[in-house]
Order: sequence, then C-alpha cells, then structure tokens
Amino acid sequence: MKTPWEYRYAQRTQRMESSAIRELLKYTEKPDIISFAGGLPAPDVFPVEEFKSACNRVLEQQGAMALQYSTTEGYLPLREMIARHSKRYGIKITPENVLITSGSQQALDILGKILIDPGDRILVESPTYLAAIQAWNSYGAEFITVPMDDDGMNTDHLEEALRAGPKFIYVLPNFQNPTGVTLSLERRHRLIELADQYGVPIVEDDPYGQLRYEGEHLPSIVVLDSQFRDDGHPCYRGNVIYLSTFSKTLAPGLRLGWVVAPPEVISKLVQAKQGADLHTATFNQVVAYEVSRGGFLDRHIRLIREVYGARRDVMLAAMDRHFPSEVNWTYPQGGLFLWGTLPSYMDARDLLMSCLEKKVAFVPGEPFHPTGGGKNTLRINFSNANPEEIEEGILRLSLAIEDKLARQVV
Amino acid sequence: MKTPWEYRYAQRTQRMESSAIRELLKYTEKPDIISFAGGLPAPDVFPVEEFKSACNRVLEQQGAMALQYSTTEGYLPLREMIARHSKRYGIKITPENVLITSGSQQALDILGKILIDPGDRILVESPTYLAAIQAWNSYGAEFITVPMDDDGMNTDHLEEALRAGPKFIYVLPNFQNPTGVTLSLERRHRLIELADQYGVPIVEDDPYGQLRYEGEHLPSIVVLDSQFRDDGHPCYRGNVIYLSTFSKTLAPGLRLGWVVAPPEVISKLVQAKQGADLHTATFNQVVAYEVSRGGFLDRHIRLIREVYGARRDVMLAAMDRHFPSEVNWTYPQGGLFLWGTLPSYMDARDLLMSCLEKKVAFVPGEPFHPTGGGKNTLRINFSNANPEEIEEGILRLSLAIEDKLARQVV
Repeated sequence: MKTPWEYRYAQRTQRMESSAIRELLKYTEKPDIISFAGGLPAPDVFPVEEFKSACNRVLEQQGAMALQYSTTEGYLPLREMIARHSKRYGIKITPENVLITSGSQQALDILGKILIDPGDRILVESPTYLAAIQAWNSYGAEFITVPMDDDGMNTDHLEEALRAGPKFIYVLPNFQNPTGVTLSLERRHRLIELADQYGVPIVEDDPYGQLRYEGEHLPSIVVLDSQFRDDGHPCYRGNVIYLSTFSKTLAPGLRLGWVVAPPEVISKLVQAKQGADLHTATFNQVVAYEVSRGGFLDRHIRLIREVYGARRDVMLAAMDRHFPSEVNWTYPQGGLFLWGTLPSYMDARDLLMSCLEKKVAFVPGEPFHPTGGGKNTLRINFSNANPEEIEEGILRLSLAIEDKLARQVV
Repeated sequence: MKTPWEYRYAQRTQRMESSAIRELLKYTEKPDIISFAGGLPAPDVFPVEEFKSACNRVLEQQGAMALQYSTTEGYLPLREMIARHSKRYGIKITPENVLITSGSQQALDILGKILIDPGDRILVESPTYLAAIQAWNSYGAEFITVPMDDDGMNTDHLEEALRAGPKFIYVLPNFQNPTGVTLSLERRHRLIELADQYGVPIVEDDPYGQLRYEGEHLPSIVVLDSQFRDDGHPCYRGNVIYLSTFSKTLAPGLRLGWVVAPPEVISKLVQAKQGADLHTATFNQVVAYEVSRGGFLDRHIRLIREVYGARRDVMLAAMDRHFPSEVNWTYPQGGLFLWGTLPSYMDARDLLMSCLEKKVAFVPGEPFHPTGGGKNTLRINFSNANPEEIEEGILRLSLAIEDKLARQVV
C-alpha cells in the first residue's frame, strides 16, 4: 500500500541505511547458533543484585526526583563522579566538561549534528566503528581513511590524509571496534604532533579502555594532548573530545554514555540534545550513580576483566589449534573483539552463509571500511559466549573456512 | 580559552538555540518560587511503589534481558500493549506500526531527520509546541502557521496555508501545548478533508489525550482519517503519523514515547534511530510494561485526571477572582496548561521579571510562535503546584499584572 510519506523522504535518507550488523543479528540470534557476531557484553556478569538494591534505594529515598524531568546536561552527582574518575586516569576536568548522553551512540549523533556540514571530510581509521559511519552519513559526511595494522592507525599515512583537510580526526585507540588492536604509545604521540601541526582536532572514542586483560595501561589521547601542550599547568586543553560509556562496565540496556569536551562545545551539544531527546532518562542516571558509588564499579570491572580475559584466552587458543595457516588474526590486549583476515580471494559474506548452516556466526568486515575494501575480513566477538561455546564455535568456524579453502584448491 | 572546535560548527547550529523555556526553568526552579513555568507532571502522583515492585520483578525474573542491548524497534510486549490500547481508541494497528522512542521528543527529531530537507515548509499551529520547532529548525525547516482560537487551529485559514506547499501538517488536537485548547470535531473533519484535497499528510502529536477532565472524548485525527477513507474495511491508512508518550501518564524521567506510522515509515525511522541512540533503554521499556499491565495504567490515569482536574478548577476559580478584566485566558478541558493573553501593549517577558521578584513564574508565549507575534501571551501550567500554591501563585501573578496596568494608565 502506497502512503503519501514515501515521496517525501529527505535527501539525507539516501545515505542512511540500516546497519548491516543489526540486520544480520536478527539471523544470528536464533538460540541454536553460537554467535560471535554481536558486540554484546556477557549477561552473566551484569550486577543484577546491585541494580535491584539501587532501584529500591532510589525509589524509596528519591523516587519523585528520579522519575521527573531533569536537566539536559545530566545528573550532577554522576557528572561529578565521572570527573573524579577521569582525574585518576589523568584527564583533569570538572563536571562542566561532562555531558551525559543516551549511550555513546547519541554522543556520535549530536557531535555530527553540531560539527558536520554536507561534504565535510572526517578522518577515520579503516576499518572503523560502523555506527559512527552510520551516524555521520546522515549529516552528509565524507570519509578520509588511514589504514590500520597491529599497532593501530598507521601514522605513516596520516600526514597525507591530513592534507585532504578533514574537519576532525576520529580515533578508537584502545582495543578498537572492530579490530581489537591498540594504538601504540609512539603512534599516539605522532598522532598528536601531526594533528597539532595541521590544526585538526580529535574525537577519541574509548568504550573499552578499562577492559584491559594484559599489558600496561596506555595514557589516552586526551591526556597525552594535555601533556603535549603543558605550560606548567597541566589541565584539559579542549583539543580532544573524549567519549566513553557505561555500556561495557555496567549494562548496555541502560543507554548511558558521556562526552568530555570544552564548556562551549558542551553548550552546543546541549542544544542538539534538547532537540534530540530533552535529556537522558533521569531514573537510569540516578540508579547508575547509586550502583557505581562506593567503589563497586571498580570491583565490578575487575570481575569483568577476569571473565572476558579468560574467554579471550580460550578463543585465541582454539584458533591456534583449529584455524588453517591461511588465516591471520589480531591479538587483542582488551575489549570485546578480534579481527580475522582470510585469504584475499575469499569473501567473508559467503563464509558467513556457510557458517550459519553450521550454526556459528560472526560479522563480515567489509561494512567497517567507509571507503571500501576488507571483503576478506571478519569481526569475532569473544565476550558473549561461554568458554565451551567458544571452543565449539571456533571449531565450526574453522571447518567452514577449510571447506572454502578446499573448494578453491580444486 | 579558544578551542579549535568553535571555527568548526556546522551551519545548522546557527538555527539551533537552547530552548528559552529550559533556560528560564533554571531561574524558576528555586525552591521559594511558585512555578507555573514548567510542563512538569505532579511528582506526588508518580506510582513509586508500583515502580519499585516492577523493578524488583523485572530484575529477579528477566534481569539479564532487561539490562542487555535490544532491538531498535522496541520491546515487543510493550509494542503489543500499545497496539491493543490504541484499538480501544479506534486506531486499528499492529505492533509493526509501533516504534518505541526515547520520549516523544525523539520521535519529533527522527521524523525531522527522515522528512525535512533544508527549506522544506511545515504547516503548524501558531502558537505550537516549542520543542518541535527546535527539533525541526536543526534540519532547516521553514514554518507556515495557521492561527489558533478557542476551538484550536482555525481551519478557515488552512487552505491558504496549504497552498504554500507544506511537506506535512503538524497538529496537537487535544489540550494543546501551549494553549490548552482542543480542536473541535467539526474542524477535525475539515482538516482531514483539506489535507486530502491538497495531498498533504499529517503528524498528530497527542501527549495529553487521555488527560481529559470534562466533556466527551473526541476521536483523534488518525481515527477520523481512517473513517474518511473507509471502504468497508476500517483500518489504519497511514496518512496520519500519530505520536504519544508515557511521560504524562507514568513518568517523564523514563523517557518513553512512541510513534504509530506505516511499516515503511517505521523502517526509515528505525534507520534514523539506530544512528541516534541504537535503541531506547531496554530496562525502562520492560519496567514500563510491567507497571502498566493488568489494568494498572488505566486506574492510574483515573487518579491523575482527578488530581489535575481539581488543580485546573482551583486555578480557573482563582483567576476568575483575582485577574483584572483586561486579561483573557483559555478554558482547557484537559492537559497541563492554560494560556493567558494580556493587553496588546504588555510584554510577558517584562511581566515575568516582576513576577520573579514576587516569587511566581510562568513562560512567556512569544517563543511558541514560529513566525513571530504573541509578545503579550503566557503559558501557565496547573499540574505541578498544589492547590494552596496555585491559589497563592495566581494572587501574586494578578498583583504583578495590576502593577503593570497601573503604570500604563499613569
């Protein structure tokens, strides 16, 4: 049935498409499939009991406030907690630098709204986070890409990309989604130097920074940038906008993220957020604060690190055992994902079709490449399946790959 | 301190401004001020106990699901409940016609994103809902206005406005924000006829429809449109997109609203919502469903009607007693607001300044007029103050008005 709306869609809808991943997830979420496709945290580590007592406390003591409209900037005690917590990692900010968002996705959306004019170029890693591409496509962004290797964005190619005049640089330095790789300290310094030289500011997206399973914590871009500009008063300089989230540490079903930015950028983001959803759910902000306070969040993150670290180990060991030598994969020091590279003639979409028959799933890597390529790559999640499922799923995946290899040889 | 961001804002930010109301609310929210400014539900009717037991039930029985990522379309049992509930009011839809949004504000935002190209004209009532203007300004909308009177949008002026070629009509037929007036049945029919004649579809925004304190429920535009096109199979025809919310019936701090639209429009909205916030908080959707089911929501709405209806009566009686004859005001049959008109030489912003000294507040009406005018108008909320405060606040407001009148005469 035709409706009068279909002749009325805005031009920008031509650049919007449903996330290939989210569409795929519908097929991969059947209960008999071992899915490495989603980016889902393990539900067995959700602090359900703590949420229960926090909900009870909040509703008993501050029910009317927690259920009422609230300010666009976000719940002040939560913003204060984020500011305190950021200081421990060397990000010297006040609550005026913090905006609570409805998940990190909203931070990407409203940054696009206030910064991107149609045709503006954004410098990104290739591959990069799919939902950032999706959010910014709707504002008419074009993408300039810098290739990745095992040390993250390859800064040898950065200067050439900066010469193309990007409005800003978007980088995921820790355990990147989708590749799982981490930007080396040397390259972090080089990124900041070159960004300064070309006068291009940076958006640092850091959803997984706290989920490190081995190795030393590397200072974030926002901290290194402050040190780079240090005139004896190290503080937040505003050249780097920093994004993070409670989705990977508390629970994604709350939709709680945050932006760290200079106050005048925060005030533009507040205007954009007013139009987008007035404010993030008051109840969720108050409950997240109640759950996190008193050191619980720190203890809980230690638990998550143990569980996910063990799952990563199981997956890497299974891949070592089962995967044919034609396949390469990354060695993530944290986060939720690793990244596989098949022989160049192989198409990961075809492989996925065979895998679905074998009841195992992953996400083909091509859509993560905003300027094309990566047909033979795949993203594999290790946080959401338990060790037995990981073992079995990697076996099935390797059998599917070997089938494809055998057919090619014949 | 200058940052590199301020030279990089997108052009659309020039049309975005912080809501005058939300900025004003900061001044009017001091505890010693009796505020008729916000659009806040009364916190004393929030069903806090029901929320507590629903949170406990959800976390005990479905904690992992309620805290996990979920689909962009929304929690299916909640969408089914909305579809069933809509049928009682004559809107014959299935869950495929329903998208859960992060408050009605997000519905306005993503409708703007998928429908409005820069320069597109949107036909609105004048005055109209401020946050719709704000959301659509950021997509470059222009507004064509039709004046209001005590029977809502004056359809005698509608045809002229339709000749200017609007992309769609935006109408709030029930107890409109800001005026509190209701579109008469005759004019509802006329609106549908003219919209059909000019081939222009309608967005019906109905946050308050269930909060009627007197008179008969009038069928919504979406229902009348189905009847208008009835070929013996009355069903949802898709010419009218219908918006509503749980903010005025359950609690605004959950940020839960919904859109009713044809499936192909829902699928475009889903794409826009994926980029905006992936999905609305799973936990809030499951808890709202748990609170609402089994007839609780119906019983609770009866309580809200009693409380708000009594407050409206107190306010109207106090205005009758105290307000000078130079002031006119609307008689709302439901909702949260009434609308005052001062003598044409008087500026409601000046009056607000005097009122803040007298510790009473309202919202000046001018910003609700997208094409200007209304300097002498004001929006007055009657849901959030208790009867004693309403009595005292209206007395203070009338004294401030009389001061202004006396000075004009001198």
